[in-house]
This record gives sequence, structure tokens and C-alpha cells, in this order.
Amino acid sequence: SQLIFSFIWLRCLFSPSVAPGLSAAKLLVEEGLNAVVLEARDRVGGRTFTARNKETKWVDLGGAYIGPTQNRILRLAKEYGIKTYKVNEQESLVHYVKGKSYPFKGPFPPMWNPLAVLDYNNLWRTLDDMGKEIPREAPWRAPHAQEWDSMTMQQLFDKILWTSAARHFATLFVNVNVTSEPHEVSALWFLWYVKQCGGTMRIFSTTNGGQERKFLGGSSQISECMAKELGDRVKMKRAVYSIDQSKDLVEVKTLNDEVYKAKYVIVAIPPSLNLKIHFNPEMPPLRNQLIHRVPMGSVIKCMMYYRENFWRKKGFCGTMVIEDEEAPIGLTLDDTKPDESVPCIMGYRPGLTFVSYRKRRICEIYSRVLGSQEALHPVHYEEKNWCEEEYSGGCYTAYFPPGILTQFGKVLREPVSRLFFAGTETATEWSGYMEGAVQAGERASREILCAMGKISRSEIWQSEAESIDVPALPFATTFWERNLPSVGGLLKFMGVSTFLSAVTAAGLVACKKGLLPRW
Amino acid sequence: SQLIFSFIWLRCLFSPSVAPGLSAAKLLVEEGLNAVVLEARDRVGGRTFTARNKETKWVDLGGAYIGPTQNRILRLAKEYGIKTYKVNEQESLVHYVKGKSYPFKGPFPPMWNPLAVLDYNNLWRTLDDMGKEIPREAPWRAPHAQEWDSMTMQQLFDKILWTSAARHFATLFVNVNVTSEPHEVSALWFLWYVKQCGGTMRIFSTTNGGQERKFLGGSSQISECMAKELGDRVKMKRAVYSIDQSKDLVEVKTLNDEVYKAKYVIVAIPPSLNLKIHFNPEMPPLRNQLIHRVPMGSVIKCMMYYRENFWRKKGFCGTMVIEDEEAPIGLTLDDTKPDESVPCIMGYRPGLTFVSYRKRRICEIYSRVLGSQEALHPVHYEEKNWCEEEYSGGCYTAYFPPGILTQFGKVLREPVSRLFFAGTETATEWSGYMEGAVQAGERASREILCAMGKISRSEIWQSEAESIDVPALPFATTFWERNLPSVGGLLKFMGVSTFLSAVTAAGLVACKKGLLPRW
Repeated sequence: SQLIFSFIWLRCLFSPSVAPGLSAAKLLVEEGLNAVVLEARDRVGGRTFTARNKETKWVDLGGAYIGPTQNRILRLAKEYGIKTYKVNEQESLVHYVKGKSYPFKGPFPPMWNPLAVLDYNNLWRTLDDMGKEIPREAPWRAPHAQEWDSMTMQQLFDKILWTSAARHFATLFVNVNVTSEPHEVSALWFLWYVKQCGGTMRIFSTTNGGQERKFLGGSSQISECMAKELGDRVKMKRAVYSIDQSKDLVEVKTLNDEVYKAKYVIVAIPPSLNLKIHFNPEMPPLRNQLIHRVPMGSVIKCMMYYRENFWRKKGFCGTMVIEDEEAPIGLTLDDTKPDESVPCIMGYRPGLTFVSYRKRRICEIYSRVLGSQEALHPVHYEEKNWCEEEYSGGCYTAYFPPGILTQFGKVLREPVSRLFFAGTETATEWSGYMEGAVQAGERASREILCAMGKISRSEIWQSEAESIDVPALPFATTFWERNLPSVGGLLKFMGVSTFLSAVTAAGLVACKKGLLPRW
Repeated sequence: SQLIFSFIWLRCLFSPSVAPGLSAAKLLVEEGLNAVVLEARDRVGGRTFTARNKETKWVDLGGAYIGPTQNRILRLAKEYGIKTYKVNEQESLVHYVKGKSYPFKGPFPPMWNPLAVLDYNNLWRTLDDMGKEIPREAPWRAPHAQEWDSMTMQQLFDKILWTSAARHFATLFVNVNVTSEPHEVSALWFLWYVKQCGGTMRIFSTTNGGQERKFLGGSSQISECMAKELGDRVKMKRAVYSIDQSKDLVEVKTLNDEVYKAKYVIVAIPPSLNLKIHFNPEMPPLRNQLIHRVPMGSVIKCMMYYRENFWRKKGFCGTMVIEDEEAPIGLTLDDTKPDESVPCIMGYRPGLTFVSYRKRRICEIYSRVLGSQEALHPVHYEEKNWCEEEYSGGCYTAYFPPGILTQFGKVLREPVSRLFFAGTETATEWSGYMEGAVQAGERASREILCAMGKISRSEIWQSEAESIDVPALPFATTFWERNLPSVGGLLKFMGVSTFLSAVTAAGLVACKKGLLPRW
């Protein structure tokens, strides 16, 4: 069968948390154009996936959280009448480290050792300061792009951190934000990633940050509403395996043996899933190599359901920051419904921990962290291993190993003849999130409108008005946060003038850097 | 059209330098089994590609070199009567550094600065010693696997090297051997790679090493002879886009709308090109993530043809080791035919240097290095940019960024139900080379014979007798090579007992390690 359309939005495989393909198609249909969305799966939503059953009512097995400054996704939700609610953070958060639980308030667990305080303070300040040098739309043009892209975040931590407390937490910070390890990711890329989300405080916070809210009824609703609006323009189970640009119209073939023809195509999938498609002509060399080089992160999302939310009675809000290499979970949030029904703790451990007896081991760590036997007796369990999904490759998003962003980054969203590229990975604000997916989808649509002469080049990129319902508050930094020295700075200050302390520092350094040749 | 075969060897895309798919099929057909080879391209040979034209007679645009210990590929060549000849290394090699040419003999350019000599000696010794700890069949089980896989080769060089001379050459050593950068590759993986080729001397040498010889008439001949032998079992232009294991027979679909059915399938393509295939059922999670994580290197191979081989008259054999960040070429070898016809210099610069006016700039650097105006007047030029090939993804081979080998390596050649995996990347001897391709193809065939009950598990892996025509000589190390201290060791020896030299060392260290916090 051959179907002819003016445009095709390839959600051929699946894409960012909220379909950039759908938001692209929506925008273009609103402009009066003819479009079709090809979806690989039998559902829309991509890396968002709201399951419904009687035990959970509904549960977000994939992307779920939204917060201030994510104005595009909030605008779409509002348009469809989908309400948000705040993730519970009333009671204390808890930081579990070296087998002990420490309750705390605020975005980051406090440190007690005075050197760790300096180190920790310097960590956040340094990451944010470095981020300021990095253009969100072109990180490869940062003044230190080459240098920072040649090192991993692990190397950066080794350079700036002096205490093991800060080191462990910094590792968790990378794990949780990009579901990969500090030694796997380019420092330039990770610094860019944090920056384009609004900095260390914005990305990591629940209140006033990226995890402030969820959608009442689940995040897939937005894709579902868009799909409903687009009607039979959305075709499910249409995984695309071939795109041929050698003819008058672009020809797109799907696994169920259909051929679609269109003037333009938006490929709204993660970069590495572009490899699922056989292209004629071949992609240009840089793009051909880019798509081999940006893997997806690894994460299993686990929801544990209980008869009641016993943690709140003990003064815990449900947020646990767990530092324990053996634990199958690194971070949790309360996932109880806003009417206090269906008590639940959502937890995940980024990285590859395919432990057996996962359910039991999760209950055991919750029991230890919360000091409660009730944690051992869940009434239901849900989990989703995103590593096994062929049409995602992993979650949440693509990461850049060292050396890739500076060499290949510039072709990430560069059109190839009549192909345009969306997907949250191509966004410049909240890339990796639902917000980035919408930005990317709408931008790619406007690239086509521009190619058709309907809008000018300067109209392709558009900023978004702030959400009235979910305003962003600034993060105030204190005088001390701005001015406390780093541990290195302190040692320098103390030591520069005295010979003896120089030697002490040298000793420390040699020890810290593992200097004495081991091989 | 539906074709039914007992076996299918997927050279669906293309594979290692010499088709592991073909060598697999050959072995099984010899056992009396029914097989078909699906080749994505309109030619066999994969990453080997012998072009023929009147200017060059024949030219290897891809994999070309063979040497002692590569016994399987030598056995195949002998079977087909394909002769080898030695790459010219009669005259002096030349090392070009800081704008000056230094003639030398032997595998590695010598150093003159005494500290550089120590550093350099320690570099090779250290790489080989570390390699000894790494099991060739399971590098993830090395005693220091986690630690070494968490660092890049750049980090290892930063730890062990003290002089910029050694550092620059070490970078070139990585570039030339794996067509990627020291900051891109896992130290564990690179150390394994060098080890499974037989060590630093074997991998880098022309005489007695991996570049000792070429095939008279070109390396693709081996694939061509195998294809001829297999006859119409080899199907060209059959890129595979789907493999379905959910039925009685495995179903394989090709872009030209054919369906092949078989009891077993060998996927003989690089790991990341597995992504070109839609699998039903999906691949297991670890394999699904592995294939996103192992990109192919980047290289453009350039052949410059001259009226005569003027370099030999000047006492140069044609080998140039060029250290110059601006140069479009990093390493050359004489590519004149063994009868001295068609004078030619083969050169390449691994990594991504898509310079414009490449031909002119190559002549200019040859002219500077060889001190000859004749280099500016070539009579012909051939080049092949492997980065643009959709069905290779790059050349020579896949590399492992930090963190991947320990987490995902173990599933590299683990069968998935009725799928078996070949490709030079799955080999344990000369992986990345033609030799590895043959080892992998034959091993995968025997895995199927084992699955059919025709041979036992212990017969799957087989060693190969040494080639009589191309014997391997041992590399002798001198007393001094074994026992000279490293620069670090020397400083330690000199300094440990005296306070002052400790401080000096500390100063050196602080400076070397970029210790003073810059951010």
C-alpha cells in the first residue's frame, strides 16, 4: 500500500519523554498542513508510559516529573486540562550514608565535616560557574570546550574534590541526573546538561526544581490527548526501517510493509535510534558517525506500594538519597496520589544493577533507611526496565562519552536535505526531559515552515512565556556560599607563604592523586 | 519471494576486513550444510576493498596489511594461491617532529633526551606488563578491570608519562592503532587490544609485525575467492532490516523485499550495526545497550601516486611517522608494487580531519618530511573516507569508551537463542583485523555445529598452526629495556631521602597535574 502525505512525522521508533513527533505534527496541522505520525509501538508517549490497573489506579513507568521553567510542556498540559500536583516534600528528606540515616531539609543533604562543607560548596559553585561559560545552543563553542570534552566528569571531580563525602555525593548527582557514571560521560557534556536545565539547584530540587510536580492521571495523557486530536493521522505499529530521499518525494517504509511519501520528514527519535533506519542516500560522514556515538542511559524504575504511607508518620517525606554501592536504589520520591490514596515509594538506581530478588532487596533497603518493619510488607510492586526497550535503547536520554560533543555535536540537529531532526536530545532547554521534547518538535516543525517559505529563519527558535500556575523562584546564594574558599584554595592560602605547609600539601597531593607510579 | 535455507550467514551489512560471514559459510558448506550469505553491498570484502583501475593496477582502499601470527588469514590466502609480499622497509624510516625529520631504523623512533628515553622505555614496558594481566578472552575479568576501565588512555598516559615527547608519541600510537583519541577510549580496552595483537612491538611493527606484508593483487581477493566458491549462495545487495525468531524458523527480511528462513543465523557485522536490524523478540537488555555503546573509529585512507619512488633514492623507505597537529596525515607506508611499478605512498590520519584541499596538503607535508620537491607532483590520487559508509559506520574497528567493557563486554559474542555473533570485534586474537574476522566466523560456525550436536563444546574454539611462509620471530628486550627506571621511579630514588628534592618533585607534580584549582 502506498499512502501520500505532505508531511510525515516519524515517531517511527519512539522518542523523548513526551512525543516531539506529536507536538510537531500538532503545530503543523494547526497551520493547515497535512501530516502523518508513524509510531513504532502500539502506544504513544515514548519514554513516558502511564500504565493503568486497579492496584495503582495509574502509574508513570517512565518520564513523570515536571517543574518550574518547563513552560512548554506546562502550556500543552494546560491546553488539555491536565492538572499538576506537588510531589510530597512536607516532612524531612533523608540521606543514608555509611549505614546511617540523616534527616534533612532543602535540595542537598548537608555535610558536617568542615572540609567537606567547603568541598561541597565549591562543587556546586564550580559546576554552575563552568556552566556559565557554555552556550546552551552550541556547547562545542565554549572557551574551554576541547579541554573539558577531553575529560570525564570523574576526572573533573578528581581535580576539584578533596573529601570522599563530596566525591560520593557528586557520583550520585551524575547517576541520578543522567543515569550513567561519572567516568562514562564527557565533563563538557554533563556541565552543559546541568546548565541547560537551569543549574545544579534547579535540576536536582524537588520544590522549585525539576521534580516539583507530576501530572494528575499520568504524563502519557499529553501524548494521548495530542494523538486523539490528530485522529487517524497517527499510525501505531509502524516502525520505520527505510528512508529514501533519492526521488521527488521522500519515501518511508514501515515494518508492516507500507510506503509513505512526503515532501519533508521529521525524525523524532533519539540520535542512536537513527541507526534503525537504512538511508538512501547515506547520511553525511559526521552524522553517520555521530549516531554510533551517543548511547542512552540505563535505568530501571521501581514502584513499591504499601497499605499506608508509614514514612510520613515517622516524619519522612519519602525522599531518600541512598549512598550504598550494594543498594538496588539510589534515590526515591513519595509517589502516593495527591488525595493520599495508593501509598507508594518510587525509587530507581541508575546504572546497570540487574540484581536478582530485586523486589525483596528494595524493601530491605527501605526498611533500613526508614527504620521501619512496615517497609518489608508491600502490597504491590511495579517496575519498568528501560534497558530492554528496542525502541528507546535506554532512559532517560542520550549521553556523550568524552570527545564526542566537540567533534560531532554540531550536526545533532542539522537537517539533511528534506530530513529534519527532533527528539529531546536536540533541545537547548531541558534537553533530556519532556520539556525538551516539545521544544525540539515545535522547532523542527518551524524549520519545515521556513523551508516552505511560510516563516522566516528568525522565527524558527521561539522562547516561551512563563507558566502562571508554576512560576519559577530564583535560588538565592548566601555570602558564604559565594565566598568560602575551596579546600584547595584554603590549603593554598595557608601554605603558599610557609615552606612547611607546602610540603604538607605536596604530601596530601601525592597521596590524593595516586601519584607514586603503581605500574 | 520466500527462500528457505538451513542456515543464513548475515553479511547483511558488511563486516570485518575479511568477511567473517564468508569464512563461516565456507566452513559450514564444507561440512555439507546448506547456507546463504546475505551481503548488504554490491561487493564482498566489507572493510577490505580492492579497487582496480589502470592508474593503480589495484589498490587496497581498506584493510590491507598482514603479518606473522595472523595464521588463519594466511592459511586462507594460501588455500586460494594468493601470494604475500613484504612492505618496503629497506631504507630508513623517518620521524617528523617539531618541523624536523629524523631518519631511524626499527619499529619505534628513538628519543634523544635522557628523560624521554626513560619515559618512552617505561611506556612500552608498562603497556605490555599491564596487558599480561588481561585475559584475551575475557578482559572484564582482569584483576584491575574496574579501575582500568574507569579511566581513559589519556588518564593512564597522564599518570605514567612525564615528558611531552613520550606523550605525543603515545597519542599517535593510539591514533594509529585504533583510529580514535586517547581521551575517547577505555584504558582497559586499549590495553586488551594491544595485548591480543601480541603486544606493542607486534602491533606497531612493519617487519615482524602487523604491517609486514600485503596480498599481491589486493586483500579483497580472499573474500572474492570464497564468494566464488560459495557461488549463488552469496546474495549481494541484500541489506537485512528484520530478524524474527518468534517462529519455527528464523525469518530474515532484506531491503529488496525478500524473506529468508533458516534454523540458525550468524550476524557477522560490527556490534553497533546490529542496530540496523529490528529484532523480534527484542534483544536482551545488556545486548540492547551494548550495541549503542561501541562506535567505529574514524579514518580516511589516502594513496598518492608518483612517477617514481624518489624517496628510496633519498634513503627513505616511505614510512613516515608524522607528529604535527595540522598535518592531514599521521603515518605513511610505501605502497609501491613489489615489482617496483606504480610508485605510491599510502598515508592516513586517524581521527576526524575533513580538511579541504586534502590532496594538495598531503603533498605539502610529504614534501616537507622527505625534503623533496618531487612530492608536490603526484600523477594520481585515490582516497577512501570510511566515515561515510552506512554499512561500516567507520574503520578499522569498534572502540570501547570508558566503563563499557566491564559492564557490557561479556555479552559481545553470547548467542541469543538461534542467533550467533561473528565480526572481528568478537575475536580474541587480532580482533579488529582480517585475522580476527576469520577467527570469529569460524568460531561462530562451530557454535552452530555444536548446537546441532555435530561437535562438542570443547571443539568450538580452535587454535591455528603457525604459517610456514610467514613465521613469527620473538621480540628480544634488552637488559636496559627491562631494568631502566621510569622517570617517576628515578625521581623517587633520587628524592625520597632528601627533603629538598621532595619539594622539587612536589613542585613538578603540582605543575604536571594542573593541580592548582583553575576553576
